[in-house]
Amino acid sequence: MKSQKYVYFFSSEFSEGDATMKNLLGGKGANLADMASLGLPVPPGFTLTTEACQAYYDIGRDQLFELLKSEVQNAVKKLEKITGKTFGAGPNPLLLSVRSGAAVSMPGMMDTVLNLGLNSETAQAMIDLTNNERFVMDSYRRFIQMFGDVVLGIEHHCFETALDSVKAKVGVQLDTQLTTEDLKDVIKLYKSVVKEQTGKDFPEDPEEQLWKGIEAVFSSWNNPRAIKYRDINDIRGLIGTAVNVQTMVFGNSGENSATGVAFSRDPSTGENRYFYGEYLINAQGEDVVAGIRTPQEITKMGSQEWAKSQGVSEEIRTNEYPSLEESMPECFKQLDEVKAFLEKHYKDMQDMEFTIDNGKLYMLQTRNGKRTAAAAVQIASDLMKEGLIDEKEALMRIDLQQIDQLLHPVFIKEAEEAATQIALGLPASPGAASGIVCFDANTAEEWTRDGEEVILVRLETSPEDIGGMHAAKGILTARGGMTSHAAVVARGMGTCCVAGCGDIVVDYLKKEFRTANNIIKEGEWISLNGSTGKVYLGQIESVEPELSGPFGKLMELADKYRKLGIRTNSDTPHDTEVAVKFGAEGIGLCRTEHMFFEGDRIISFRRMILVAETVKKLKAEHMCNDLDELKEKLTDKKLINAINQYKYALDELLPVQRQDFVDIFRALGDRPCTVRLLDPPLHEFLPHDAKGQEEMAREMDMTPHEVKEIVHSLDEFNPMLGHRGCRLGITYPEVTAMQARAIVEASLIVEGAKAEIMVPLVGTVKELQLQKEIIKEVIADVEEQQSKKVSVKIGTMIEVPRAALTADQIATEAEFFSFGTNDLTQMSCGFSRDDAGKFLTDYVHDGIYDADPFQSLDQEGVGQLVQMAVEKGKATRSDIHLGICGEHGGDPKSIDFCHRVGLDYVSCSPFRVPVARLAAAQASIRND
Amino acid sequence: MKSQKYVYFFSSEFSEGDATMKNLLGGKGANLADMASLGLPVPPGFTLTTEACQAYYDIGRDQLFELLKSEVQNAVKKLEKITGKTFGAGPNPLLLSVRSGAAVSMPGMMDTVLNLGLNSETAQAMIDLTNNERFVMDSYRRFIQMFGDVVLGIEHHCFETALDSVKAKVGVQLDTQLTTEDLKDVIKLYKSVVKEQTGKDFPEDPEEQLWKGIEAVFSSWNNPRAIKYRDINDIRGLIGTAVNVQTMVFGNSGENSATGVAFSRDPSTGENRYFYGEYLINAQGEDVVAGIRTPQEITKMGSQEWAKSQGVSEEIRTNEYPSLEESMPECFKQLDEVKAFLEKHYKDMQDMEFTIDNGKLYMLQTRNGKRTAAAAVQIASDLMKEGLIDEKEALMRIDLQQIDQLLHPVFIKEAEEAATQIALGLPASPGAASGIVCFDANTAEEWTRDGEEVILVRLETSPEDIGGMHAAKGILTARGGMTSHAAVVARGMGTCCVAGCGDIVVDYLKKEFRTANNIIKEGEWISLNGSTGKVYLGQIESVEPELSGPFGKLMELADKYRKLGIRTNSDTPHDTEVAVKFGAEGIGLCRTEHMFFEGDRIISFRRMILVAETVKKLKAEHMCNDLDELKEKLTDKKLINAINQYKYALDELLPVQRQDFVDIFRALGDRPCTVRLLDPPLHEFLPHDAKGQEEMAREMDMTPHEVKEIVHSLDEFNPMLGHRGCRLGITYPEVTAMQARAIVEASLIVEGAKAEIMVPLVGTVKELQLQKEIIKEVIADVEEQQSKKVSVKIGTMIEVPRAALTADQIATEAEFFSFGTNDLTQMSCGFSRDDAGKFLTDYVHDGIYDADPFQSLDQEGVGQLVQMAVEKGKATRSDIHLGICGEHGGDPKSIDFCHRVGLDYVSCSPFRVPVARLAAAQASIRND
Repeated sequence: MKSQKYVYFFSSEFSEGDATMKNLLGGKGANLADMASLGLPVPPGFTLTTEACQAYYDIGRDQLFELLKSEVQNAVKKLEKITGKTFGAGPNPLLLSVRSGAAVSMPGMMDTVLNLGLNSETAQAMIDLTNNERFVMDSYRRFIQMFGDVVLGIEHHCFETALDSVKAKVGVQLDTQLTTEDLKDVIKLYKSVVKEQTGKDFPEDPEEQLWKGIEAVFSSWNNPRAIKYRDINDIRGLIGTAVNVQTMVFGNSGENSATGVAFSRDPSTGENRYFYGEYLINAQGEDVVAGIRTPQEITKMGSQEWAKSQGVSEEIRTNEYPSLEESMPECFKQLDEVKAFLEKHYKDMQDMEFTIDNGKLYMLQTRNGKRTAAAAVQIASDLMKEGLIDEKEALMRIDLQQIDQLLHPVFIKEAEEAATQIALGLPASPGAASGIVCFDANTAEEWTRDGEEVILVRLETSPEDIGGMHAAKGILTARGGMTSHAAVVARGMGTCCVAGCGDIVVDYLKKEFRTANNIIKEGEWISLNGSTGKVYLGQIESVEPELSGPFGKLMELADKYRKLGIRTNSDTPHDTEVAVKFGAEGIGLCRTEHMFFEGDRIISFRRMILVAETVKKLKAEHMCNDLDELKEKLTDKKLINAINQYKYALDELLPVQRQDFVDIFRALGDRPCTVRLLDPPLHEFLPHDAKGQEEMAREMDMTPHEVKEIVHSLDEFNPMLGHRGCRLGITYPEVTAMQARAIVEASLIVEGAKAEIMVPLVGTVKELQLQKEIIKEVIADVEEQQSKKVSVKIGTMIEVPRAALTADQIATEAEFFSFGTNDLTQMSCGFSRDDAGKFLTDYVHDGIYDADPFQSLDQEGVGQLVQMAVEKGKATRSDIHLGICGEHGGDPKSIDFCHRVGLDYVSCSPFRVPVARLAAAQASIRND
Repeated sequence: MKSQKYVYFFSSEFSEGDATMKNLLGGKGANLADMASLGLPVPPGFTLTTEACQAYYDIGRDQLFELLKSEVQNAVKKLEKITGKTFGAGPNPLLLSVRSGAAVSMPGMMDTVLNLGLNSETAQAMIDLTNNERFVMDSYRRFIQMFGDVVLGIEHHCFETALDSVKAKVGVQLDTQLTTEDLKDVIKLYKSVVKEQTGKDFPEDPEEQLWKGIEAVFSSWNNPRAIKYRDINDIRGLIGTAVNVQTMVFGNSGENSATGVAFSRDPSTGENRYFYGEYLINAQGEDVVAGIRTPQEITKMGSQEWAKSQGVSEEIRTNEYPSLEESMPECFKQLDEVKAFLEKHYKDMQDMEFTIDNGKLYMLQTRNGKRTAAAAVQIASDLMKEGLIDEKEALMRIDLQQIDQLLHPVFIKEAEEAATQIALGLPASPGAASGIVCFDANTAEEWTRDGEEVILVRLETSPEDIGGMHAAKGILTARGGMTSHAAVVARGMGTCCVAGCGDIVVDYLKKEFRTANNIIKEGEWISLNGSTGKVYLGQIESVEPELSGPFGKLMELADKYRKLGIRTNSDTPHDTEVAVKFGAEGIGLCRTEHMFFEGDRIISFRRMILVAETVKKLKAEHMCNDLDELKEKLTDKKLINAINQYKYALDELLPVQRQDFVDIFRALGDRPCTVRLLDPPLHEFLPHDAKGQEEMAREMDMTPHEVKEIVHSLDEFNPMLGHRGCRLGITYPEVTAMQARAIVEASLIVEGAKAEIMVPLVGTVKELQLQKEIIKEVIADVEEQQSKKVSVKIGTMIEVPRAALTADQIATEAEFFSFGTNDLTQMSCGFSRDDAGKFLTDYVHDGIYDADPFQSLDQEGVGQLVQMAVEKGKATRSDIHLGICGEHGGDPKSIDFCHRVGLDYVSCSPFRVPVARLAAAQASIRND
């Protein structure tokens, strides 16, 4: 067996790694090697590879360490040679830091042990060498605590208690106020904590310290926190973490020493105004973030702005909180140059760690800095302007998962952090909202009318709630997944929504919901973060999004590169206007069912449904499809009345549907609009409560019992697979005719309107054929009546697997396909999106699916059907127009897939349009 | 345009057609031509082709008749030449019959007009010629009536009234008692009826009569009755009917004339004892079936047996009802020879029509005779023995749609005909049953224990009803399709079932069901015909099936030719025994969920379900999968109790499940048994009523409210696509482990047992992998405990479309695939089988699907997925074992498909096993 190389050395003299080796050396290790090669002041060290970590889990600690031993020893010797120090001995002891570092930055693993190599002997040598006993003791106590905590697994508070007892004894507040003797007491106490907790003495042997440190990093790779972090952040495919062992430099060796972190640009706005960062004099890394001392700004300008915001006078500032620029101008200058160099080198905003040891600057880390969405946009634009990156690169720089932040209100960060979280649900529709709780849609509408801001809380929502959902500022549901009714509708409206929040128990009767610790009653304030799924008590301040400036420019750039068209899913003029403002080039899915719920029309529609079955039976019985002819064959008044009601209802609905389309077409201008014919099962429209049934009974001259029986007879076990979509149009052709007429007539009223009629849930070409016949008849009739030419495309959704399988046949009738990947996913994977929440989270967690297939298209499975349908459709009709209108139309990975399989456009909810534009551009850049 | 030949002439001198031309000439026309060619005594005539009928609908009457004119005129001239008669003129007028005849025998169309060509002039010529005025007048009145009825569309009763008025006037009962003068009165009255009803005189012009007759046949092709008949009998792909125009011969020309119908063997038993048939002297065709006169037997033996059964003395018999053999021995001898000749020629039992005109025999039709299933088996066996057909042909002769008749009780035909039908539902499970109505499963069990015969009537059934369904003689449901729960379970049990009977309204409260005209209360008798879907009032006598004799022989023959294995779907020892008796070679689907409902075990299972979610959450929270370890981490007594209940329930279930499998394995011997792990969603097992919930609350030390909340929390919108199948096993691995252990241990108890474990509802290979790991662990554990080697195959159902799409991946883990085509159809077509009844009938009627895709596999759509999975599965694992266990496993067309795509076996309900054996043999003969 060829022996594998597990250790990579880095120093300004000689580095074995470089920035391209992130997978092997981790991000930190690769960049340290890179910086060292570039001649930047990096303390020398070495990196144990991620493959070593993998081997740790494969072959076990003992075997691995056997393999590693000589490599590590050689590397340490090399360090001794370069630094002139000795590991574990005087006169100049070599101290080391040990830090983890995976290919992707990942909190949750063991982080850092500093000052490793200290023991009684080397401590004394250090004192002899530096003549700074306090510094050495400070380093020593830090070492024992860090090592005890992260390597030996002793709980943090044991050390805290020991430290506090000494502080109390001598009566000081800050660590820096402890004297050398105090620190010695602390060290003694710390050692006894270790003995107590582990039953063993603190290891004196530096070799043992080093190997234990290395092992702690490896084993932390699979600790629960790390696993959870990878899980939540969808980090997959990594083999392990690297370990970086590096020569210590000391920010705590006196007043001429310091340590700090810095961003090359403002990570929250992206602005390139000044060098953003913080430092502390006479401190080690963890002090900066620990919050015990107030860190100081790097630049004078930053320091002054800070002072102003805190009400600190310039005098106090310069005395107590001077900037690095002022306190150590030489080091600042050097750091500023390094910053400029690194930005140019990595062509991105950098997040750096540095230490100044006795006036000498050392770089301990650099990486591309995390940033807000706004900053990402600003920085990409600026870097492009500065000539560091080109247009394509600028577009690729945008993290599409983040971009949603820019399109919705967000809570002010500090306000959200201060709020009390009471539950966590699914982040179903992004944005932030505060409002008073109410539990039914009517109340939501009413209170909103009265000027209240309302959060609608439901077990789940149904189409009947649509008015209240529109009115509410936010929606919270206890059940349902990312594509439940609430989630889909809320995203469509751009309303913030937290769905499937299993932490809450909704009690409609008591008008309250309960969490583990709280009871929230109707009328009380809560806040929802739809981007994280968090639910808070009370009201939280938020800010509105801005869509102009660099973001707008970037959008234009995206349009230049993308090949996919971008449409929107919209069924109201308002949503249409929003989407057009966001850059939608048409409507890919205009649902018609929501329209039936508004105002009085629900009565008309219910009227139709309640007699539809009777009318259908009469037609079959008398073998007569003309309603007027049919009436003449009947004598029973009740039956004649049924037919009259049916016709009356359709006559009532026609003008209101037509007006709906007129309004939407107007909002669209000459952009195309794909209108889907009625889709949901009819029972969804009927009243299931006694009151509603009585109302309909009065309307229709029936008994409430009769209405109830009809409602009951329409119930379905699996409505998702029931009597819906074109199946309704086949059973009740008059409904198809009415809708077609409304669309066609509206398209003649609005000049330039481009209507496309989409037949839903087609599974066989024959269904489409039959529906098309009806539509064509209507078109011919309207053309004759109005003496105008109607130009309306007719196509279908591909959402039933059988439709994809027989797309070649269906394309003989369809001028376009629109992939309804929500339903296609439901049927292909056998998941009900309303129910799957119960196990789908576990499924993604267990790696059964890479991602929730309702959020990101299951390319391996469902994708096969899409691809098949594309190929078969094009084989039959080469110019067939292809789009997608499922939720996936707004998901970047799915958009990439759509680009690759050759769709013409994607359609998504209005608020996803900008994301889709960018994703389409990225897909084009990535694949072409 | 090349002129098309529309008219085919036939006579003993010259026939243009033959028996192979059924599609063009219809069955009747082709066989007439054939018989004429063979020199049999067939009156000459000609046939207008089915293409002419198609043209009638394509180009219209006028254009078609233009095209036909000269061909028809030439044919008539040819007839005149051969017969020496003249159409429409004396001295010897040519009279014609006009009859329809499609490729498939089809009642519902215009049938026959006899004596066409008569008018005042030709009637007189006939009288002059025959010197038999009464005969001529009898023929004339028949002609006017038939022509008036079927060509002019005058309602039958108008003529009946006229005839009755004359009979009443002269005081006679029978038509034969009317004198010549009476008949002349009838003719006058008939003519005035025609004038009255049509506003025109009866057409005197024979040419006009002929063309009108032809048109009437063509237009009857698409009359509602004919369409309905084709629809019901699944007759598709025909282009139209032919028209046969034939020289009249007269069975009514005196005492030396006769007309009759005859079968060459007994069509109800198939026996070849004597020449079976009936005739009447001095009559025309319609008299034999009209039932006014008593028809006489053909043979003496038949006649004597008839007399015996009717209590008619030999003297009266020979005087009043002599057989043809006795009354016209010469003609009988000739007919008997023709019969023998035709059977030999067509190699099948013949159904013939003949007429004797003045002592001369004419054959008017022959065709393969319709027969009962028993007769079909008998005849095929006999013909094979007689050397007329070979084994393969004998097997192909069996109509598999019919064969079910042989496997279930059937009503005695006369008793059923006499009964009052009150409703029609779907023929969900064949057989016949009478019993008293009850409306819940418990009552059904109780009453059966008390010795009653019970029909269980439900809106729909659920797994909780299983005991009552087992007890009942028959099941009637108001809802659900051919593969609803009731239908599937009933077929599995071999219990007669009528499902989805929309004609009935079930009222559980009043304990009654209502039809349009009847109210049937609990305890009243009804009868169900599960083969036709008919529901009757009262009790009907039935007979049990016989499975030995020729049927048994034919089955053995089937086994010789078939390549597909035949397994059964069974989950009880009893069903298993039945299936093995029927020839099943193993169990292809042993469901385990029914077992959970029996006796006390439902309590155990409910116990498990009610705490399952809590246990799952605790496991996740504490990141601990070992229940004992987990318990130690808890302090809350309620939580500890939950874990105890969970373990306790599983421990209770293990031995009973094991015993279930032991019993089934014993019944199977060394035949393989594929056991499917738990499949249905858990809420199906929970009590939804207050009483059941209270019971469980007591059992578990919970409040009824808590139980209710858990039951409610498990509700699903679309349970079919919900938390079921292997998804349960993923969420609750202990259930999989318990079931696997029960199966494995049982397989070690029963020597020779061949268990196969099937993981249901797999959609990704990862699911199977995870479940297999659990099963493998159990196997290893049992092997170690018992120091025995376990040999159990592990495979999966392919029932989720995604599984078919990714079958190549799944086959890396699966040793076998079993196609669950019920669910595969549901998901691929987007149909819920419990709901689809509402529109699927219309769908088949409208030709959207050729057949109900739950009854016969949708080869075009779903079949693609099956084929894909077969190919992908074999590509990964060449020896993968492939079967089907959906309902389609018992459907002949689907079995043919399974044979063609290369499955190894089909599995069906026990009572379908014989059908499947035959179907597999036919598939092999047909395709290989």
